[in-house]
Amino acid sequence: MDWSLSIDKAIPKPLRVIFRGAGQVFFCCNAVTGLIFLIALYVGGITAGLAATVGVISSTVTAYLLGFSDDDIDAGLYGFNGTLVGPCLFLFLENTPQLWLFVVLASMLSTVVMAALMRILQPYNIPVSTSPFVLTCWMFMVAVYSFDGFSRGPVLPAQGIPVEIVADSVASTSAWFATFTQDVTVAWYTAITKGVAEVMFADSIIVGILFLVGIAITSLRGAFMALSGAIVGVVVPILLGADQTLIEMGLYAFNPVLTMMAVGWVFLKPSTGSALLALLAGILTVICQAGLANFLAPIGLPTLTFPFVLVMWMFLFAASRSRYWGNSN
Amino acid sequence: MDWSLSIDKAIPKPLRVIFRGAGQVFFCCNAVTGLIFLIALYVGGITAGLAATVGVISSTVTAYLLGFSDDDIDAGLYGFNGTLVGPCLFLFLENTPQLWLFVVLASMLSTVVMAALMRILQPYNIPVSTSPFVLTCWMFMVAVYSFDGFSRGPVLPAQGIPVEIVADSVASTSAWFATFTQDVTVAWYTAITKGVAEVMFADSIIVGILFLVGIAITSLRGAFMALSGAIVGVVVPILLGADQTLIEMGLYAFNPVLTMMAVGWVFLKPSTGSALLALLAGILTVICQAGLANFLAPIGLPTLTFPFVLVMWMFLFAASRSRYWGNSN
Amino acid sequence: MDWSLSIDKAIPKPLRVIFRGAGQVFFCCNAVTGLIFLIALYVGGITAGLAATVGVISSTVTAYLLGFSDDDIDAGLYGFNGTLVGPCLFLFLENTPQLWLFVVLASMLSTVVMAALMRILQPYNIPVSTSPFVLTCWMFMVAVYSFDGFSRGPVLPAQGIPVEIVADSVASTSAWFATFTQDVTVAWYTAITKGVAEVMFADSIIVGILFLVGIAITSLRGAFMALSGAIVGVVVPILLGADQTLIEMGLYAFNPVLTMMAVGWVFLKPSTGSALLALLAGILTVICQAGLANFLAPIGLPTLTFPFVLVMWMFLFAASRSRYWGNSN
Repeated sequence: MDWSLSIDKAIPKPLRVIFRGAGQVFFCCNAVTGLIFLIALYVGGITAGLAATVGVISSTVTAYLLGFSDDDIDAGLYGFNGTLVGPCLFLFLENTPQLWLFVVLASMLSTVVMAALMRILQPYNIPVSTSPFVLTCWMFMVAVYSFDGFSRGPVLPAQGIPVEIVADSVASTSAWFATFTQDVTVAWYTAITKGVAEVMFADSIIVGILFLVGIAITSLRGAFMALSGAIVGVVVPILLGADQTLIEMGLYAFNPVLTMMAVGWVFLKPSTGSALLALLAGILTVICQAGLANFLAPIGLPTLTFPFVLVMWMFLFAASRSRYWGNSN
Repeated sequence: MDWSLSIDKAIPKPLRVIFRGAGQVFFCCNAVTGLIFLIALYVGGITAGLAATVGVISSTVTAYLLGFSDDDIDAGLYGFNGTLVGPCLFLFLENTPQLWLFVVLASMLSTVVMAALMRILQPYNIPVSTSPFVLTCWMFMVAVYSFDGFSRGPVLPAQGIPVEIVADSVASTSAWFATFTQDVTVAWYTAITKGVAEVMFADSIIVGILFLVGIAITSLRGAFMALSGAIVGVVVPILLGADQTLIEMGLYAFNPVLTMMAVGWVFLKPSTGSALLALLAGILTVICQAGLANFLAPIGLPTLTFPFVLVMWMFLFAASRSRYWGNSN
Repeated sequence: MDWSLSIDKAIPKPLRVIFRGAGQVFFCCNAVTGLIFLIALYVGGITAGLAATVGVISSTVTAYLLGFSDDDIDAGLYGFNGTLVGPCLFLFLENTPQLWLFVVLASMLSTVVMAALMRILQPYNIPVSTSPFVLTCWMFMVAVYSFDGFSRGPVLPAQGIPVEIVADSVASTSAWFATFTQDVTVAWYTAITKGVAEVMFADSIIVGILFLVGIAITSLRGAFMALSGAIVGVVVPILLGADQTLIEMGLYAFNPVLTMMAVGWVFLKPSTGSALLALLAGILTVICQAGLANFLAPIGLPTLTFPFVLVMWMFLFAASRSRYWGNSN
């Protein structure tokens, strides 16, 4: 909205770039929105907030030092991957002193990977999005097994492919129906807000609401798509019979949130058609989330936002060949 | 052949597009050939035939709705991945009511992935081939572990990396020689025809013969390459000492069938040189098949036609840098 | 150096191409350097030397037969992947008669993959480097589980993700300090030279020194970067507390050796800036090495030189978007 962009421009440049970096996690090039996101992260937990701050500063400063495009840096494009790297490593790994060094190194690497993937995708005019964050964090998380500073690898909330799935399925289905009929309203309310919050690893209703407010300040359509994505990320896994704990934590929702924002608001021309396409993309993101989670479980890695990245890439590449959305590049 | 192309043009457009979609599984843009393939699938099993029909219709209709190129749709290029998705999911997953929904969703996604990969490979002028089918089916197959509608994941015919491989090898080698000298003729006849049939997941001699007839109607060189690929896919694994059950089911042969058709008939200028190159590609496809099968076995996924896709891509990319086959694009 | 280039030009063409192929393993287009590398390999072990010779000849002859660019062949670009394929398969697999066939087939495939990746990376002007060797050897190594000719799969020196890592870490840390204070000088001397030698799979101090001499003949900056990479590959894993046996064998060092040569000498304009960038790349290669090793351990595959390839690609792609190193292609 106009008033927020006026404030955005009034903020001193170094701060503005950092805030915009945080804002770009949800595609918002707006320092006010980014500031609200950072405040929300500190509300969710001091360590997460500090880690995000260290991350966004490290990755942005690295971009300056390596001489990448000033316009890109100014838009916060070299900040959002670092913003995510910090809280991610602190959620999944042990909180040791070495971890702060890892956050700085990983944020620096995320900037190199960002520039590299921007170069690779440049002829296609497709966004890199959060893929540098995902690839960098995966590498650091699986590397810690080799280093004495860490006594364990990443800890996942999900179980992956359960061995006893056959025996359980009948019992769990009937139990699930019982729970469903009792708690369905509460679960939805929790799951949908947490689904937005989990984009930055916060298991918190209030953080999710603050994120939605921040997005709404930049764009109402953006906030509507985020909310729709969270609803898809709760309804679809319920219909498919996915694990209820994961659904209630919002762990099926944060990827569709990003997919629907990207396809339905940011990267295609806003229309009823692109909204429907975003809905299809959101539904498929839920299945991709389940598939990738089971694929990565044996190696002990979480999906992070890669289901969103994969589905968004497929839909944006495909859209460029469509007579409705494509251009002739 | 000319008479079949006359019939092809006489068939009403919607039917022709569907039939050509089936035909493109073996690179045949010919409705007569496609119709024979569909009939062969129904001969192999009513469910497989129905699943292929639902798949080819879903993927083709999706391409219309998303506004992709009319010429591509008309050539059946948005049909063959759906044709394969249907029987694939029914072979490897449980036959539950949810599975029909999955076949429709996966066929729709295969169309999105097809358009996306066409865009990615466009600057290189390299075909997407069956990669959308493979990637989509892998994702759906590994996703079902998370959903109550399915009580198990995909079931593979192969064992992957056997733990007791050392102990077995001496015994199995001598046993194999005994079997070899007795049944070698029968085994070859079975393995070669089934090798062609397994491209569409049919474990049947008659289906393989019908497929070969269908290909021969479009091109004799195509049928010759398919037959050569099947022979390579039986002889080479026998020489390398691979598992005999897998060889007899044609599971080492369906990938070289497609590789030799692609390299020796469809995508390079037909010549003695490209026939020899196809032979080398076919042999390497057998090794790639073994490697990828062992790589995917721990996660419980079959290779599908990915060995063919990988080897074909390598040879076609490489051919574009050769003074014999390349052009200066 | 000038005298070595005069000799290089005086050597008959077929021999020169083969020697340059060996030289290109360390980015040296210089037959004298390549000859020293080959001699060093034979010093390390007759079989390794023979396997490298068979590999470099097979891959170079294949490039001639398939009609790839004469200039590329003459520079040894179709030789270095074959040079690596030979000793690699002999180190990790059983020494059976079939293995010589595998070395020839894998070297031929490495040439096809080389040409394919050259075509893919051509619009970006990024080198293929040793990725064809890595991809080809991975495929052949995991394939042997399916073939009777081999009674086992590849044998790794590393353990991957240790189950008992928690219990061990306290004990091993104190033990490590004890060892560290006693043997630190010897360990460094051994680890650094072996780190250079392990690029071609030689666990030998003398081979490492011969390699450094060979590189110095082509370029002193190249030799300096190689030595710096080896030091990074010893110091950084010691600081992070990695396994000491692996460090002493040079198994954390051979990848940073190549990364620092590529980033600090071959592919960016030599300057203090690019030397610092090479240092950062070298440090990140150590973490990438640990991550990829743990990722591949369950499937039984070694990282080979892929950590170097990945980090080099990221830094070179990124450099092309930097105002300090990039060009406007």
